[in-house]
Amino acid sequence: MDFTPSPRSQDLADRVRAFVRDRVEPAEPVMRAEVVRRRAAGEDPWVVHPLVGELKSAARAEGLWNLFLPAGHEGPYAVQFGTDGGAGLSNVDYAPVAEAMGRSYLAPLMFNCNTPDTGNMEVLLRYGSADQQKQWLEPLLDGRIRSAFLMTEPAVASSDATNMAATATVDGDTVVLDGRKWWSSGAGHPDCKVFIFMAVSNPDADRHHRHSMVVVPRDSKGVTIERMLSAFGQFDEPLGHGQVHLEGVRVPVQNIIAGPGRAFEIAQGRLGPGRVHHCMRLIGLAEMALELAITRSSARQAFGSRVIDLGGNRERIARARIAISQARLHVLHAAWKLDTVGARGALCEVAEIKAATPAMALEVIDLAIQLHGGGGMSEDHPLAAAYAGARSLRLADGPDEVHLATVAKLELAKYAATAGGR
Amino acid sequence: MDFTPSPRSQDLADRVRAFVRDRVEPAEPVMRAEVVRRRAAGEDPWVVHPLVGELKSAARAEGLWNLFLPAGHEGPYAVQFGTDGGAGLSNVDYAPVAEAMGRSYLAPLMFNCNTPDTGNMEVLLRYGSADQQKQWLEPLLDGRIRSAFLMTEPAVASSDATNMAATATVDGDTVVLDGRKWWSSGAGHPDCKVFIFMAVSNPDADRHHRHSMVVVPRDSKGVTIERMLSAFGQFDEPLGHGQVHLEGVRVPVQNIIAGPGRAFEIAQGRLGPGRVHHCMRLIGLAEMALELAITRSSARQAFGSRVIDLGGNRERIARARIAISQARLHVLHAAWKLDTVGARGALCEVAEIKAATPAMALEVIDLAIQLHGGGGMSEDHPLAAAYAGARSLRLADGPDEVHLATVAKLELAKYAATAGGR
Amino acid sequence: MDFTPSPRSQDLADRVRAFVRDRVEPAEPVMRAEVVRRRAAGEDPWVVHPLVGELKSAARAEGLWNLFLPAGHEGPYAVQFGTDGGAGLSNVDYAPVAEAMGRSYLAPLMFNCNTPDTGNMEVLLRYGSADQQKQWLEPLLDGRIRSAFLMTEPAVASSDATNMAATATVDGDTVVLDGRKWWSSGAGHPDCKVFIFMAVSNPDADRHHRHSMVVVPRDSKGVTIERMLSAFGQFDEPLGHGQVHLEGVRVPVQNIIAGPGRAFEIAQGRLGPGRVHHCMRLIGLAEMALELAITRSSARQAFGSRVIDLGGNRERIARARIAISQARLHVLHAAWKLDTVGARGALCEVAEIKAATPAMALEVIDLAIQLHGGGGMSEDHPLAAAYAGARSLRLADGPDEVHLATVAKLELAKYAATAGGR
Amino acid sequence: MDFTPSPRSQDLADRVRAFVRDRVEPAEPVMRAEVVRRRAAGEDPWVVHPLVGELKSAARAEGLWNLFLPAGHEGPYAVQFGTDGGAGLSNVDYAPVAEAMGRSYLAPLMFNCNTPDTGNMEVLLRYGSADQQKQWLEPLLDGRIRSAFLMTEPAVASSDATNMAATATVDGDTVVLDGRKWWSSGAGHPDCKVFIFMAVSNPDADRHHRHSMVVVPRDSKGVTIERMLSAFGQFDEPLGHGQVHLEGVRVPVQNIIAGPGRAFEIAQGRLGPGRVHHCMRLIGLAEMALELAITRSSARQAFGSRVIDLGGNRERIARARIAISQARLHVLHAAWKLDTVGARGALCEVAEIKAATPAMALEVIDLAIQLHGGGGMSEDHPLAAAYAGARSLRLADGPDEVHLATVAKLELAKYAATAGGR
Repeated sequence: MDFTPSPRSQDLADRVRAFVRDRVEPAEPVMRAEVVRRRAAGEDPWVVHPLVGELKSAARAEGLWNLFLPAGHEGPYAVQFGTDGGAGLSNVDYAPVAEAMGRSYLAPLMFNCNTPDTGNMEVLLRYGSADQQKQWLEPLLDGRIRSAFLMTEPAVASSDATNMAATATVDGDTVVLDGRKWWSSGAGHPDCKVFIFMAVSNPDADRHHRHSMVVVPRDSKGVTIERMLSAFGQFDEPLGHGQVHLEGVRVPVQNIIAGPGRAFEIAQGRLGPGRVHHCMRLIGLAEMALELAITRSSARQAFGSRVIDLGGNRERIARARIAISQARLHVLHAAWKLDTVGARGALCEVAEIKAATPAMALEVIDLAIQLHGGGGMSEDHPLAAAYAGARSLRLADGPDEVHLATVAKLELAKYAATAGGR
Repeated sequence: MDFTPSPRSQDLADRVRAFVRDRVEPAEPVMRAEVVRRRAAGEDPWVVHPLVGELKSAARAEGLWNLFLPAGHEGPYAVQFGTDGGAGLSNVDYAPVAEAMGRSYLAPLMFNCNTPDTGNMEVLLRYGSADQQKQWLEPLLDGRIRSAFLMTEPAVASSDATNMAATATVDGDTVVLDGRKWWSSGAGHPDCKVFIFMAVSNPDADRHHRHSMVVVPRDSKGVTIERMLSAFGQFDEPLGHGQVHLEGVRVPVQNIIAGPGRAFEIAQGRLGPGRVHHCMRLIGLAEMALELAITRSSARQAFGSRVIDLGGNRERIARARIAISQARLHVLHAAWKLDTVGARGALCEVAEIKAATPAMALEVIDLAIQLHGGGGMSEDHPLAAAYAGARSLRLADGPDEVHLATVAKLELAKYAATAGGR
Repeated sequence: MDFTPSPRSQDLADRVRAFVRDRVEPAEPVMRAEVVRRRAAGEDPWVVHPLVGELKSAARAEGLWNLFLPAGHEGPYAVQFGTDGGAGLSNVDYAPVAEAMGRSYLAPLMFNCNTPDTGNMEVLLRYGSADQQKQWLEPLLDGRIRSAFLMTEPAVASSDATNMAATATVDGDTVVLDGRKWWSSGAGHPDCKVFIFMAVSNPDADRHHRHSMVVVPRDSKGVTIERMLSAFGQFDEPLGHGQVHLEGVRVPVQNIIAGPGRAFEIAQGRLGPGRVHHCMRLIGLAEMALELAITRSSARQAFGSRVIDLGGNRERIARARIAISQARLHVLHAAWKLDTVGARGALCEVAEIKAATPAMALEVIDLAIQLHGGGGMSEDHPLAAAYAGARSLRLADGPDEVHLATVAKLELAKYAATAGGR
Repeated sequence: MDFTPSPRSQDLADRVRAFVRDRVEPAEPVMRAEVVRRRAAGEDPWVVHPLVGELKSAARAEGLWNLFLPAGHEGPYAVQFGTDGGAGLSNVDYAPVAEAMGRSYLAPLMFNCNTPDTGNMEVLLRYGSADQQKQWLEPLLDGRIRSAFLMTEPAVASSDATNMAATATVDGDTVVLDGRKWWSSGAGHPDCKVFIFMAVSNPDADRHHRHSMVVVPRDSKGVTIERMLSAFGQFDEPLGHGQVHLEGVRVPVQNIIAGPGRAFEIAQGRLGPGRVHHCMRLIGLAEMALELAITRSSARQAFGSRVIDLGGNRERIARARIAISQARLHVLHAAWKLDTVGARGALCEVAEIKAATPAMALEVIDLAIQLHGGGGMSEDHPLAAAYAGARSLRLADGPDEVHLATVAKLELAKYAATAGGR
């Protein structure tokens, strides 16, 4: 159980941390203010602020680019994008790097390490054909285009992925796509050029072999972005969350990734690590919130004391520190399991952190909001947006309750003789 | 301890409930959608939807108007607006009426029972001069104009109201007003014509006699609404929360309500009942959330069951029911104390419900969001806005912690011999 | 919704409160110390301290006797034991009386209002034959004998009462009883002379008509008290909790209360109000714990302050006050429902308080323990015993989870069109 | 951050685990039943069951003896008692060993690794004179005698150790000891032959140099064990918790360990690791409780299902698993900090786990109790005793709140410019 980051990881984490503090955090309110201004002025908010390109270039120039790319992949793209011409980072090594990025919603984008692009790139890297990799993976890795992942549907309880009802009907050498998806993150970005679309292709197969993943160019005929969704009032520009309608969209049958019926197999690989990354980032987000909580409540006076010294505030600070410490170790442990025994062996650990980390972050952020007074809920501080982001992770990639069910199932399986079922 | 509503209260509550269900709830998504549309289209969202006027007229025609006006006031306005030509409702009688309004953020406006106008009207009714009543109270009671209350300041911890630093300097027969206020609710409404502004007028007096409340026409020279604030991304149109700057604003000295140095005395009277009304409405809001939680999770299937039958969902529904039941009784009890022994005698009970009711509502709303999946956080359901509204009440009129400190102080006072201090 | 106690109730509650403070609370440590001494010295602890008889006589002399007896019964015993020659107290009227008794584990015994005797007396009063009333109810009401209720079985999950497997086999004009019961409260008292035993008499009937209740003289052949159980180390002398074995016990068939197969019908009537009484008493227990928490932590110094002024202690005191206030109103409301619409109409309210009140009390008691330091867990203060008592009520008469399931079921039934099942 | 146990640690943990399962757990109910029997029969319960000696010999024969002895000590006893003639285990290496012992209250005694003897042995090892080591440390390490630690006082809030008021007055070449102590664990054991007594020796020195630790033979004149205390009704035989009175006890001045005024310095060294050991053991205790919770609720049926499949039970099992996993990592991390940067550098981490681990264990144990029904609170299962043990650790060695204050203080110190004070 060795969670020590390698020297390379430490160096990267230090440099990412410095970059986020020195470059991204000062830029964030500027970008946020511009969005507020555009919205107030009736201008299109779905544009990319010039600072984004500037920061992306700067990060890339420092070698802080595509760090999410995991070790162990073969092929041209895996090799080409290793930071030192070699393998990527292990999960344990990526953890402190992702934590450093997690302080700011916008930071991961600067390092080309943001969802959903990371997951989509991993899908293409692992399961994509050479053509798909050439056409889509290469520009994604290069940061020239963005992507979205079209899975969740408004009409069904998507926590049970087998519920998904969109269709991908093979018709000769094309596949016809129909369905409405939402919470398609990244769809708002003007550079979003490609979707990965999950749909029923083999309705007669068993529950876990009915669905396919299909690559869909964003400008295909029949694709409509019906609206951008807000979560707790946050639109999360410039990536955003789209509601996308596909009506009779036709793409070549080769666009089915790895062939029909393999969506669940791919999703398992895609989402598992994905939300581990979310958990890593949530640690950074919670640390940011705790820092703001302390500095704000130390700087303000009420009833003759610093706010931090009133009532139970210091105890709450201590409990927040404890919660973050435990969660960080928990996430590192899951990362270490992923590294040492793989996704299947780490099933319980990954489900554990998915169920536990967002709630931890929410508690700390909520404390920070309370210690900021009304301002904490406003756009003057990153806390309301942080709350919305962490809250959405209690639902995205499956609600808490689904992960708890997994943990319980695996725990009970240890007592096979007496326990079972469900 | 008799919480039985009078027949008049029951009748009013039934009719308000029916009005909210039949008229307001169907109108709400229409109005919300229009705001979303206007914002997306770059049009001014700070307009009043025609449905508002329509619904206000309808409510008034049914006698569901100014029901907040309490019993016990004398003078022309108290008499004139009693629903049966007589006294207003007691707090216990108002509770079910306010609960019925609380289901929807927009409903209270339709009945001329929304904050901050109710509080401002009460101030003018109790402490205003005949001129002030004629000029401002009459049109407010008539629903022709709106008002805002300018208390909280961005630069200080306003949880300690003695911190407030805005100034009201008497200069001959005028008073000069300077300061920046925020979370001035109601300031976004196009009909908002008058502010009540709290500021230091007597800097050398003791802590609780330093401040005054001043009536300020919204179009006075030197008044700037710098921006409208969002709470968790909600702007709460058409009332909204403004950041207002007063710079060298001059109004006649008679505009100081009840004379200089009486702000705390007035505020005590104003905010006490105000937040009791909030608590009453929160019960209705929580009931609405629980209803949505049940209907949604009963209608959707996952993993072969109705969502409501999965895991601990039914237990959570039960706990929500329990929490609402307890909170309703708690609020009724505080209302009954207010009615029977007055604001001073009900200090502990009012502080108790202020500290406890918002947290209850947040728990129920959060459960409803979780059972809705991603949609729960979106603008498709009233839940994210409800969350933002309830969350803001853990801060507005003083944070939870201030109310807990009051409860503790009063509890310890029962043991005067051994406990004391602080 | 009128929770105002009648003048008679107020007077009784005042006098019970005074009696508990002046007579029972000083006696309690003496009696407890004697039990500790007897146990340490190897003497039989299952004796009745002379103070018990003394206090019982004093309470009875003051008319504070059998106050639990509800209104609405007919027959000689109901009339005879009314405190003013008339009807008993309503549930709302009994609530403050029971609360006053609840401060001390031993107090209810002094007023002949302790479980399980109250429940057993109610069963005999409502369902007993004239002979049973003459033989058992009369001396019970007179306080000359004690009783036990034999329901829970060690071998099955007794939370599902239909699981109970003890048998009552009619054989001519006798009925043969076999089975092992535990948590048979009251069985340790030397004056315990009669059991009510629940067993399967009609194995072929439907689930709710399979069981009977049978009156069993304690000295019947085949009855063995195998041991006295402790809960969290508390034996709760002199009543205690027995494990009782019945092996081939024969009693006349007339001992089946109200005839075979009616156990569930009787139990419903018996346990419902029973645990309402528990809830009423828990309010008093929590008040006692809060009082000790405040007086102790106000009297001790640490780190230069009174303990109560350290960290979050005052906030916790405030939260305890809020929790108790809410719980008291909740219990009163259930009592009022029982009074106004009967046990069937109050099903939800009764289940709510059963699920919620013990947890509230545990929280307050635990806080008091923490503020007492190590002493709080010892026999020097009534807190460890109070904890054990309140904890056992999360299981006795059905675990919390069963009551939550009831609340959920009734809540969902309001939405019959969409929700149902389970 | 490497928490990997060494092969030696793994081997020891495996063997301790097997020994606990195969030898101690079957013996535990036998020993407990004998205590129950002796108490019921009025026999002295403060005897050592023959199984203890048997198991101690067996454990020692297997080399599972004194494993608590840390690395890094010099002198005859450190070397002599290393398990392979060499250094002791690091904290990280001891963690899984202690966890394995933690499943059972009695297990540590069998391995000579129980409190308070371990702490006392460490004090003598680190600070004791050669004579003290010869006379007391040697037989303690050998398991021939037991010891107690006399610190907490009934008359003051001992959470603030500077409150302690017992005196150690030097009078020529003797020191006179006076004072009353309680919760002196180990004092009930018939082989308890020596106390370490903490008292004010230098009343005029500063707060942290006022106290000394003194070695006191148990049979010194003036020593009285006034009584044995119970915690939640548990006496924890055969070690127990004594209330000890010292009145004019005289011992040679050389008995002051390391010279006058050094008690705080020694205590810091003693208690820090001590409660880390408690935390390690609590992980094992919680695992035991979770195991019982699952096996019991899988084996029992209610309402047509296995109990474990009802309501939110599976979610609670999952949450317990998550809580244990996080706590284990948290404890390992503190152990690793102790190993790598020492007690001073690990101050925050140690305070964190002290504040967090007992609460985690209590939650899991409480769940297990609930899933056992009434039996869970009885002496038939180890759960009530486990609850009492874990609850006492929220107070022993300082209450939670003191540790939270430490964590907050250290957290705020990171922001020295803005935060400070208290």
